[in-house]
Amino acid sequence: MDISDKIRIIEDFPKKGISFKDITTLIRDGEAFKYVINTMADNLKDKNIKYIAAPEARGFILGSAVAYAMGVGFIPIRKPGKLPGETISYEYDLEYGKDELVMHTDAIDIGERVAIVDDLLATGGTVNALAKIVEKAGGIVAAMEFLIELEELNGRELNSEYEINSLVKYNV
Amino acid sequence: MDISDKIRIIEDFPKKGISFKDITTLIRDGEAFKYVINTMADNLKDKNIKYIAAPEARGFILGSAVAYAMGVGFIPIRKPGKLPGETISYEYDLEYGKDELVMHTDAIDIGERVAIVDDLLATGGTVNALAKIVEKAGGIVAAMEFLIELEELNGRELNSEYEINSLVKYNV
Repeated sequence: MDISDKIRIIEDFPKKGISFKDITTLIRDGEAFKYVINTMADNLKDKNIKYIAAPEARGFILGSAVAYAMGVGFIPIRKPGKLPGETISYEYDLEYGKDELVMHTDAIDIGERVAIVDDLLATGGTVNALAKIVEKAGGIVAAMEFLIELEELNGRELNSEYEINSLVKYNV
Repeated sequence: MDISDKIRIIEDFPKKGISFKDITTLIRDGEAFKYVINTMADNLKDKNIKYIAAPEARGFILGSAVAYAMGVGFIPIRKPGKLPGETISYEYDLEYGKDELVMHTDAIDIGERVAIVDDLLATGGTVNALAKIVEKAGGIVAAMEFLIELEELNGRELNSEYEINSLVKYNV
């Protein structure tokens, strides 16, 4: 199935000069959505995965469905202040300023294998923070799955120690 | 399966006096998560549903997996400023102040049946806003599915025109 034509390009969102890849037109199509989730689950099937971890909010849409498809647990990674239990956090640099992700301290059983799922691999900063937080909690990052990869932004370089798969690649 | 013992109660979150029902302990358990999604999908199976709609962010976790399980499309309902395309919005009252939800104007084909999925039915204000926005876009709200219902907060009263199902009920 060619899913790339289900992704809508919206220019100048969220700011001028950015060519935003809108996945809502893909996921509202039941068949295309199922194809994406099945492909990600298939990529992960022989990796002895115990959990899928994904960042809010778009990461939840793909990550939880992949977890369900594989019959494994789902771990939400959130902005500070949203998770009610004890958390561990990881701060990372953005283009301007810093951002922080948190996860429940007891979310992962030590030594278990975790796959990270998100909609977009751009510079790779967010997913790298996510991997570090999973490792800080005692998990092993077995793979990273993305729907979209913006190849020019070199997200793979920052995350060269991890296996990375993406379904649709762009060069702009 | 008794899933209620998978839900963790955390007192005084997000503020004093609130007994927060934490679903992260349930969804990290692959079997319990699968049971919840299958139960919701089963409740909806004979309703000719075309889309699942759910609000960010916890609603995405359950809603997208239900959409995948049913083979239908998923529609994210978001806070303002997050969706890149043309949106319709609905403003609703909170205990203090107002909140607003938005959806892409072209998310729903006119006359199609939509089920709303969220983690929690409390006062029902959020899900009512969500139903109104689906209707404003031309959809039909076929049912509302919740993991948790706080019965004392009477969320069913505000939404008495809709079919409502919940898996775990609390009276505190």
